[in-house]
Amino acid sequence: MKALVLHGIRDLRVEEVRKPRPGPGQVLVRVRAVGLCGSDVHYYTHGRIGEQVVREPMIVGHEGAGEVAALGPGVEGLTVGRRVAIEPAISCGRCEYCVTGRPNLCPTVRFCSTPPNDGLMCEFAVIERHQCVPIPDALSWDEAAMLEPLQVGVHAGNLAGVRPGDTAAVVGAGCIGLACMEVARAAGAGRIIVTDKLDYRLKLARKLGATDTINVDKKDPAGEVSRLTGGRMADVVFECTNRAAGAPQAWGLAGIGGRVMMAGIPEEDEVSFDSHTPRRKELLVQYVRRSRHAARQAIDLVASKRVNVAGWVTHRVPLAGAKKAFDMVADYADGVLKAVILP
Amino acid sequence: MKALVLHGIRDLRVEEVRKPRPGPGQVLVRVRAVGLCGSDVHYYTHGRIGEQVVREPMIVGHEGAGEVAALGPGVEGLTVGRRVAIEPAISCGRCEYCVTGRPNLCPTVRFCSTPPNDGLMCEFAVIERHQCVPIPDALSWDEAAMLEPLQVGVHAGNLAGVRPGDTAAVVGAGCIGLACMEVARAAGAGRIIVTDKLDYRLKLARKLGATDTINVDKKDPAGEVSRLTGGRMADVVFECTNRAAGAPQAWGLAGIGGRVMMAGIPEEDEVSFDSHTPRRKELLVQYVRRSRHAARQAIDLVASKRVNVAGWVTHRVPLAGAKKAFDMVADYADGVLKAVILP
Amino acid sequence: MKALVLHGIRDLRVEEVRKPRPGPGQVLVRVRAVGLCGSDVHYYTHGRIGEQVVREPMIVGHEGAGEVAALGPGVEGLTVGRRVAIEPAISCGRCEYCVTGRPNLCPTVRFCSTPPNDGLMCEFAVIERHQCVPIPDALSWDEAAMLEPLQVGVHAGNLAGVRPGDTAAVVGAGCIGLACMEVARAAGAGRIIVTDKLDYRLKLARKLGATDTINVDKKDPAGEVSRLTGGRMADVVFECTNRAAGAPQAWGLAGIGGRVMMAGIPEEDEVSFDSHTPRRKELLVQYVRRSRHAARQAIDLVASKRVNVAGWVTHRVPLAGAKKAFDMVADYADGVLKAVILP
Amino acid sequence: MKALVLHGIRDLRVEEVRKPRPGPGQVLVRVRAVGLCGSDVHYYTHGRIGEQVVREPMIVGHEGAGEVAALGPGVEGLTVGRRVAIEPAISCGRCEYCVTGRPNLCPTVRFCSTPPNDGLMCEFAVIERHQCVPIPDALSWDEAAMLEPLQVGVHAGNLAGVRPGDTAAVVGAGCIGLACMEVARAAGAGRIIVTDKLDYRLKLARKLGATDTINVDKKDPAGEVSRLTGGRMADVVFECTNRAAGAPQAWGLAGIGGRVMMAGIPEEDEVSFDSHTPRRKELLVQYVRRSRHAARQAIDLVASKRVNVAGWVTHRVPLAGAKKAFDMVADYADGVLKAVILP
Repeated sequence: MKALVLHGIRDLRVEEVRKPRPGPGQVLVRVRAVGLCGSDVHYYTHGRIGEQVVREPMIVGHEGAGEVAALGPGVEGLTVGRRVAIEPAISCGRCEYCVTGRPNLCPTVRFCSTPPNDGLMCEFAVIERHQCVPIPDALSWDEAAMLEPLQVGVHAGNLAGVRPGDTAAVVGAGCIGLACMEVARAAGAGRIIVTDKLDYRLKLARKLGATDTINVDKKDPAGEVSRLTGGRMADVVFECTNRAAGAPQAWGLAGIGGRVMMAGIPEEDEVSFDSHTPRRKELLVQYVRRSRHAARQAIDLVASKRVNVAGWVTHRVPLAGAKKAFDMVADYADGVLKAVILP
Repeated sequence: MKALVLHGIRDLRVEEVRKPRPGPGQVLVRVRAVGLCGSDVHYYTHGRIGEQVVREPMIVGHEGAGEVAALGPGVEGLTVGRRVAIEPAISCGRCEYCVTGRPNLCPTVRFCSTPPNDGLMCEFAVIERHQCVPIPDALSWDEAAMLEPLQVGVHAGNLAGVRPGDTAAVVGAGCIGLACMEVARAAGAGRIIVTDKLDYRLKLARKLGATDTINVDKKDPAGEVSRLTGGRMADVVFECTNRAAGAPQAWGLAGIGGRVMMAGIPEEDEVSFDSHTPRRKELLVQYVRRSRHAARQAIDLVASKRVNVAGWVTHRVPLAGAKKAFDMVADYADGVLKAVILP
Repeated sequence: MKALVLHGIRDLRVEEVRKPRPGPGQVLVRVRAVGLCGSDVHYYTHGRIGEQVVREPMIVGHEGAGEVAALGPGVEGLTVGRRVAIEPAISCGRCEYCVTGRPNLCPTVRFCSTPPNDGLMCEFAVIERHQCVPIPDALSWDEAAMLEPLQVGVHAGNLAGVRPGDTAAVVGAGCIGLACMEVARAAGAGRIIVTDKLDYRLKLARKLGATDTINVDKKDPAGEVSRLTGGRMADVVFECTNRAAGAPQAWGLAGIGGRVMMAGIPEEDEVSFDSHTPRRKELLVQYVRRSRHAARQAIDLVASKRVNVAGWVTHRVPLAGAKKAFDMVADYADGVLKAVILP
Repeated sequence: MKALVLHGIRDLRVEEVRKPRPGPGQVLVRVRAVGLCGSDVHYYTHGRIGEQVVREPMIVGHEGAGEVAALGPGVEGLTVGRRVAIEPAISCGRCEYCVTGRPNLCPTVRFCSTPPNDGLMCEFAVIERHQCVPIPDALSWDEAAMLEPLQVGVHAGNLAGVRPGDTAAVVGAGCIGLACMEVARAAGAGRIIVTDKLDYRLKLARKLGATDTINVDKKDPAGEVSRLTGGRMADVVFECTNRAAGAPQAWGLAGIGGRVMMAGIPEEDEVSFDSHTPRRKELLVQYVRRSRHAARQAIDLVASKRVNVAGWVTHRVPLAGAKKAFDMVADYADGVLKAVILP
């Protein structure tokens, strides 16, 4: 079968590899769509994320969906042909964090397309039974692939406890920022302010539900949010950038007693900020790691059209065009938000 | 000025009374619209609610809105002509419950149209400064009068912590039930199931956002909810009836680990229910008393058209027609949900 | 091996039964101590609890502890001789409630000594690996057996969110009531008021940490709690009786905005109460079903002597004396709180 | 009367000033004891805290207690001679934060001994009625003066939601650190680990309830906490230093999914930390600003001897010795933790 294999920095190849077979409790999935995530691009451009280094050729991609193609021995409750989204994390199921309902914090979790585990940008993938999330027919393949990032937004929204009428601010209008924004809107946020440096992303944010947007290269975001809210600032802020500067910006946009959800993954290893701001406002700062138990909510939101995840997808390409898509995303080509690979 | 005065059971008269004058810190309001609440009707039909007995003639009504007509000495931050909704409760501001942000639990609270305090169904009313809630021009007088019951729904929703994708059930499609339903919808509930005995109320519920309705005289509500949810039942249930039978119904509709908000006020003094159901499901049962700090959220929801409170209003009458409206509501006349008196 | 087998109402026999063998993933435990729980007695006196009927002879007992005697194939992380408390519930590990950290709500949970599952009052028992909770040497066998009911108190306390300085009331001074009382004390409750009908139990409660006790047959509990608290009543109330009358008593002892934990299992199938009290106080009523993830906390509390569970044990008997102990407990013999069977 | 007046950096004088008179709603208090707080010292050594600059001579001190000496017009519920602790903050009572129960976040709060408001290190002080917190006779004047810092610990503990059996870590063994430590112990924390650079403070921490202490100049605190907890780290961490280095240390001591309470006020204006640690652990970081509604809890803890605040007091001096005490504290003289001024 064909697969997209990362051999090293900027060295991504479509190759013929052996089609895998499902073992006991496993499922073979015919992959239909895989979103291209920032972490995939980071491996592509740096060959590593922190201490996780690509040492062997690795199939990339973890935002995937497809049809069940075959069942390994002992798999129950699924049939061949069933449409599923793929949960990319395999948690241990036995540690303190798993049994208390926090598998996203499992210390021994394995993750699709994180070395040395292969990912999903290939024609067929073998996954564990519990990674299969059945989806309704109402969802397109694009939408199914977008469930994974949407769940990060759902999890962040759950942690934030957004209430109807809240003012929400979203720092960074990438895919996770849009997910948080749409979830905040679905949770009843009244004013939803999105900031970014790229006008085309802010335009997309407005199209998908932002009531106000701020280009932080042109205007002072704290000043603008103050103006829009009569000085009250935001009840809840979602930090969704990949830069260290996102944290202090987020804390500046939060109102007194506000809640800040830290959903972004900064490229820098060190973050610094004014020490007095968060204390004077008595902020609650909640860091967000992937997601947990958010699939049911995410599917409901997409199936009922209350969030629009298809709107994130700006490019759709076959495996053969994947390398070009990686380059586009890596270089922040104008207009790119989310590319979906169709194996 | 003219006022609607309750003299005894079913004895309600439009009378000429002395126009009041605002004292220090008080505000004279030209009343424009007052909703007719179930508690008003209860005083009309029974002359009392529990230990609160109408001993002297009393002006009724507490869901009111109007324009500032005059300011008493020392009132700041308001001008004549300002449109305001009227907060009907005067809490003490000093007790443990007030200072910890729970004025709705103040033991010495005084309440409009609760004996011996006059209400708002009159041309002019004097209220305390802190009872004035300025409203935007986007709100009609009907909508402004409906903010009071809507806030009960907002408070119940805040206590419930509705999350996007939750399944909500609402027991009783009166005004408070519709308020809870619309707030649950605004908070992202996916499936919203409403039950009642009156088909015209269920029809209105569907029009205003219910995804499913159940006439409990025709179908078993627990069975129907089980069928609709694949046995999972509701994440959160709002009990909004005025009958003791609402409680056990609510607990039956809740799923395992569910949350039940008890917003209704039963006419019966005693409630009884199966002792095992709530324990086996480990339910959280939260009683709801009026509302607190919900005005900002409620105004935002109405002004942005995310909830439709004007849709509750089925009858609009001047003071002269008020008695007839009380009779209609008291007798559950077909098609009546909310009457608004226009003094 | 010897086992205590329930054949029917009041028909309990010490019998020779076949010693079981551990299968894959299972553990053979040499049972050292098993507490006699109210539910065991209920099966003894009624032959059933609700719909759970003893149809075949059944070994009783589920509050157990012992030493690992043998390991089935594939069991890791345990050695023969290891001292363990026994978690009596086997949850499925895969349902929505298990994976979200609420195994106590698993709809398909199996439970030791609930028909048709045998219990622990025997010399050797086979249990699943995950039912073994290793305990430190500091714990006696009596204490280890008491971890199971203590965990109910820990879970109730966790749900209650007891804070230092809170006033707690405990309705019912049986084993679960004492567990809730000791946990509330450990969590910092200042005044801790315990009610019961039996003076010897109230005496034991005072010995174990109650600051005040009330015999509800002699004094009005609400009046007494009002007197002790200056009218403020209790911040948190634990209902721990086996009677329907416990619920309204609990709600009466709670203060405005109070939290009521319903940990008791009423014998009656129907509960009734005043419908206005809980609403006027805006109570939060949280039902409590067994416990979850409380072992670590419970062991820490016992090992550090911050709770005294050995103090609950009033009788210690070998298997041969078990029937007499069941009769004593069933008849509320004077001075009986908890009997421990030593197989 | 005599007062301790700060004229400029290191310029503190005992002076004769005019005895104040209570106005309407005010109370004259004969001050008996005032704790010397780090913020007092900061004004003494720097003449400012951030933007708050001592421009006029100012009486210092805000941790005070005394007897009611006279009542201004209209004051109810107090009598001359009543012993009171003094709440140092005067919040507006009308803003969004005050009415929702968060007066510590009031944007227009005035605070004793913050320019331009005089403090309490004088013989008589005039305060508002609501600043008087009546205390039981069981409390000494030292203890009464310590209620103010203890309440910071109570508030931090309330926000942390410490549960029995939790492992707590406290970074910094000054007065606030000891307050958090004692509150965590009162709330049931099992292992309580305290870190500092000063051995005499760690010795005091052990005396007052720490189970383990770490001198961070001698040992790696994260390594030690890992060793003590079997790698699990702390469930809750209280950051209580006055240095920017406290934040990253705190986050390093927290376990996966842990809660970090930021109660310290760093001298530095900028804090920097590793960007990955808090995200990978999905930490909740809650900043803490003074305290709110903690007096009842604090008094209960002290009166019942469950916390020992008298143990913090290492020096007791009259007004005449105050300057020397300020120097000692400013210079971290060996053995100094808390000095109390006795006017």
